[in-house]
Amino acid sequence: MSQEPRKPSPLGDMSPEEFRRHAHETVDWIADYFAGISTYEVLSRARPGEIRNSLPLGAPSEGEPMRAILDDLDRVILPGITHWNHPGFFAYFANTGSGPGVLGEMICAALNVNGMLWKTSPAATELEEVVLDWLRQMLGLPKEFFGVVQDTASVSTMCALAAAREAVPGLNVREGGLGGSLASAPKGVPPALRIYTSVEAHSSVEKAAITLGLGHAGVRKIPVDEQFRMRPDALARAIDEDLGTGWKPFCVVATVGTTSTTSIDPVPEIAGICVRHGLWLHVDAAYGGAAALLPEMNHLLAGCDRADSLVINPHKWLFVPMDFSALYCKKPEVLRRAFSLVPEYLQTAEDAAVHNLMDYGVSLGRRFRALKFWMVLRYFGREGLVSRIREHIRLARMFTVWVEEHPDFELMAPVTMALVCFRARPRGSEEKISDSKIGGGAAASDLDALNERLINAVNGTGEAYLSQTRIRDRVAIRLSIGNIRTTESHVHRVWELLLTKLDDLGSPRSGTSTGS
Amino acid sequence: MSQEPRKPSPLGDMSPEEFRRHAHETVDWIADYFAGISTYEVLSRARPGEIRNSLPLGAPSEGEPMRAILDDLDRVILPGITHWNHPGFFAYFANTGSGPGVLGEMICAALNVNGMLWKTSPAATELEEVVLDWLRQMLGLPKEFFGVVQDTASVSTMCALAAAREAVPGLNVREGGLGGSLASAPKGVPPALRIYTSVEAHSSVEKAAITLGLGHAGVRKIPVDEQFRMRPDALARAIDEDLGTGWKPFCVVATVGTTSTTSIDPVPEIAGICVRHGLWLHVDAAYGGAAALLPEMNHLLAGCDRADSLVINPHKWLFVPMDFSALYCKKPEVLRRAFSLVPEYLQTAEDAAVHNLMDYGVSLGRRFRALKFWMVLRYFGREGLVSRIREHIRLARMFTVWVEEHPDFELMAPVTMALVCFRARPRGSEEKISDSKIGGGAAASDLDALNERLINAVNGTGEAYLSQTRIRDRVAIRLSIGNIRTTESHVHRVWELLLTKLDDLGSPRSGTSTGS
Repeated sequence: MSQEPRKPSPLGDMSPEEFRRHAHETVDWIADYFAGISTYEVLSRARPGEIRNSLPLGAPSEGEPMRAILDDLDRVILPGITHWNHPGFFAYFANTGSGPGVLGEMICAALNVNGMLWKTSPAATELEEVVLDWLRQMLGLPKEFFGVVQDTASVSTMCALAAAREAVPGLNVREGGLGGSLASAPKGVPPALRIYTSVEAHSSVEKAAITLGLGHAGVRKIPVDEQFRMRPDALARAIDEDLGTGWKPFCVVATVGTTSTTSIDPVPEIAGICVRHGLWLHVDAAYGGAAALLPEMNHLLAGCDRADSLVINPHKWLFVPMDFSALYCKKPEVLRRAFSLVPEYLQTAEDAAVHNLMDYGVSLGRRFRALKFWMVLRYFGREGLVSRIREHIRLARMFTVWVEEHPDFELMAPVTMALVCFRARPRGSEEKISDSKIGGGAAASDLDALNERLINAVNGTGEAYLSQTRIRDRVAIRLSIGNIRTTESHVHRVWELLLTKLDDLGSPRSGTSTGS
Repeated sequence: MSQEPRKPSPLGDMSPEEFRRHAHETVDWIADYFAGISTYEVLSRARPGEIRNSLPLGAPSEGEPMRAILDDLDRVILPGITHWNHPGFFAYFANTGSGPGVLGEMICAALNVNGMLWKTSPAATELEEVVLDWLRQMLGLPKEFFGVVQDTASVSTMCALAAAREAVPGLNVREGGLGGSLASAPKGVPPALRIYTSVEAHSSVEKAAITLGLGHAGVRKIPVDEQFRMRPDALARAIDEDLGTGWKPFCVVATVGTTSTTSIDPVPEIAGICVRHGLWLHVDAAYGGAAALLPEMNHLLAGCDRADSLVINPHKWLFVPMDFSALYCKKPEVLRRAFSLVPEYLQTAEDAAVHNLMDYGVSLGRRFRALKFWMVLRYFGREGLVSRIREHIRLARMFTVWVEEHPDFELMAPVTMALVCFRARPRGSEEKISDSKIGGGAAASDLDALNERLINAVNGTGEAYLSQTRIRDRVAIRLSIGNIRTTESHVHRVWELLLTKLDDLGSPRSGTSTGS
């Protein structure tokens, strides 16, 4: 990088030529980072406060040369990075900031348009409409689904539930709030609105309910079957029960690919129940929707054509950098009614002829997010995306067989897509429950403790990053394959690490790691 | 750009070397764009549907060469761009995707970390804490203010109001929702919560109230004085009135820099009223906070040390690319209680020792937004930011004098920062109200019509982009100076255009443009 001293101009931006020089340096930094990504330790070893303590207490008074800043990126920031772009990243839902996606973000930042109104950059609104329609077609969803980009699935789901609330007949939340009375209820008594979702659903459903003023009480969790899928019989019974005790059911959230185990709720049956009771059906396919791009997996979205709204996150498994969540809604006018407020200073002559996308969510300001998705879709093409997702699913199935065939491991949940939930259970071991508590306070077993130690041991190598969950109240290891750089060799390697580390840990001890 | 045909590899990402080549091309594209930004027409001339119609109906089946995609960027996308980075952008609140900010976005996209948990990239969480603390110091706010990044001010304000709602004594919204009863209210009757804000406040306050389940009815608009500032006497009276009629006041939103005119509410007096009644005080300084960086303008935040929460948007006037909104909260534990939900699969060993920033808002996934702000703060330095903001204020004052001294123009609101609200009022003209309606349906005057034509004429030149508002029910032109590239010559030029176009339009006619 250049060593020349910099005299910052007192006004204006970095000059275009200075930008050019530093941006070329930065591109080389990124290309080198991508080329050498496997040489980093996936999980940062930083201790709490370590990064903070290596930074100055206050902002510099005078500007500094970009060179110094980029040096600090290597020296101070990188040691605190957990490398999501590493092929050994198997935690949570692995994702990817792909090459074309990064190029899209570069251009987005340079244009820096605010797509709040159509007029404030027609291309931002129209490209968003177009790419979300392309994705809709790829998913096989009906034309009626109107798409709008939100930052994350949590926000998409909150917006969908706000629309569902707005759609409740006789309840005008927009005007009167939840204190407004249902036509059918005695005046002054609040409608006790209720959302139904499975015990395996994402926490964003409850977060949305809390935000929307329904509280935890406004969400009824429906039990699941042995494959962690919502039980339609239990759903129907819960709705009947609630109707009998004064609740007002208004919405069901089904999940195609739950976070813990990627279970798939029986959407067709659930949709039938929703139709019967006039309930809004929202489908959380934030993760699982991507798999439905495969012709052989499109059945994952069976019944979703009958949903009122659906969310899928291209920033999860479609190789789009964070953030990009696609919210589809069959009743965009309801979504609009839930959010649209147009003050004088935001009115334009084109309002009647166009969509102003600020009207379909909480955020007013909107980045030109469609650009990166457009570049990813075009660069890889539909077939390119399909073959990459198919390969991830193949790798997950391969790993599943290894787990199933090994006497010291067991599968903890069906593998529906590219997430494998499993645990070590050394042959001959019997599960002993100790008095110690871990996680949410559940009683820990010796196998829980062993598996936590195993995860930490594998993560401690720096070669892979696994996360964990609890399944049937036992610790399970989650291996999520979703980074575009992950190949068969990386999956082999993490399996090898699991075997080696399990061997190192020896047979399971009683008690937890802290208690022994 | 390179012409070589591309054979996309069936799996994996764009190779690092291919990324390097295309990213260098993209950097040159951006540097050329920055260098030639003044040659673009600020406001896109695209007609509704024009961009959409020039795009294919579906995604390509096979991947395409990046070259073709970047060519389409020029051919299809750019004509649909309204150039927010243009020095002649004076609409809304002008903003900037500055050089160091763009570099920050490039690195953010490449690292693509999800900072939902401290563990998922310690540097993302800790740098966010650090840069928001730097900004807090620069604003002169007390240490107690805990900062967290949201995407936009609308979301920051919604989060702040959710915390305010959570803080209402005796009301446990998180558990029972708004159907839960106030300790002091008869069981079953919903608490009629009320927020107070001025008639000039941003629409995001009402949007937040609607989202949170309070409805329009949950917001009481307080009248303003002749300088568009909330009247504390009217606020106090409204609260007393509401207390007498069964409402439960819980929150006041004051604004430092309203969107229409950048008026500044008297926060010290408002804070006193809030303390007296135990109300949460949220300050919307999304735009105006930046001006408070100037020692001579820091009085803008007088009284804000007594606020419970405050929002300022570095993506407005601190040269940070979209999106970046800083939410400060003096009671982070309340904000956390309003949003935190930690499922099993998101628990980590470090939870007690760190902040997991997903706990302080709706979004679970979080981009590494702190990086771009850190680079902007270091590259320009505090003094560099101050001198640029000071220059914008100087330019706005210069323009104000021109308006005041010209017999055919008049100022429509006091100029407090870098926004000038004015209109043409040719000498000798008297305001005639016609039967025609414009905008929100208010009766239009001949001067309204003249000023709308004037705005359109200036915007039609492609050299500048002005927006409009209504002040005391009359159309006003808004000139917002906030782009880092805007210099005295650009302000001279837009003034010249206004004079020339007014001259072209001749004396005011009766009726509106459509009616004449």
